[in-house]
Amino acid sequence: MEEKPIWEQIGSSFVHHYYQLFDSDRKELGCIYIDASCLTWEGNQYQGKQCIVDKLTNLPFQKIVHNITAQDHQPTPDSCIISMVVGQLKADDDQVLGFQQTFLLKNVGDTWVCTNEIFRLALHDI
Amino acid sequence: MEEKPIWEQIGSSFVHHYYQLFDSDRKELGCIYIDASCLTWEGNQYQGKQCIVDKLTNLPFQKIVHNITAQDHQPTPDSCIISMVVGQLKADDDQVLGFQQTFLLKNVGDTWVCTNEIFRLALHDI
Repeated sequence: MEEKPIWEQIGSSFVHHYYQLFDSDRKELGCIYIDASCLTWEGNQYQGKQCIVDKLTNLPFQKIVHNITAQDHQPTPDSCIISMVVGQLKADDDQVLGFQQTFLLKNVGDTWVCTNEIFRLALHDI
Repeated sequence: MEEKPIWEQIGSSFVHHYYQLFDSDRKELGCIYIDASCLTWEGNQYQGKQCIVDKLTNLPFQKIVHNITAQDHQPTPDSCIISMVVGQLKADDDQVLGFQQTFLLKNVGDTWVCTNEIFRLALHDI
């Protein structure tokens, strides 16, 4: 069996870790950001680890479950990894909604952090 | 009126230019790529300006129209710009489909090129 390229292994591990934290206890997501990180969430911009975690923690739902339907990863010329995720989510007892999300990951010390993140709900319900 | 941040101006100009070329004559898209550019199109990977343009040129439709419903842009720590686009497209006489697309733009000389691009059709028709 051919081994997956390293950027795909790192990207898919990150994505798995991100949604696992998001769905179990999103206060814990601080560990993946740095102070230079940018988040655009439904068109609104947040910068810095604390600001991003505050936004994610205060999203108006208690329970959330993400299901990933596709994820793509690529290496960038600056030795980062860019990832795009498409999936569905269900928050509390709301209907299932589609979403798309993009991450840029950078190697800092012995770990990979998210420097850029963009999230949009799909405009049309499924 | 507040001026938009420079990365947003560059990102939205690029996005406008990209879809204008794509919808009018996608052979002309070569000008936005470099040999290090990566494209992932519906899960398949292509690298290099020529390989990417060949892929885009040979997509199995004559006419296409993109409509952008949302676009978000951010600066990255390496002075690039990351953009995520959500929209709808109509190819030939097919039904309207949703799509999502991510770009990473890098300043090379006096222009901005696309080093990374990821495209997915929405899994659920609109």
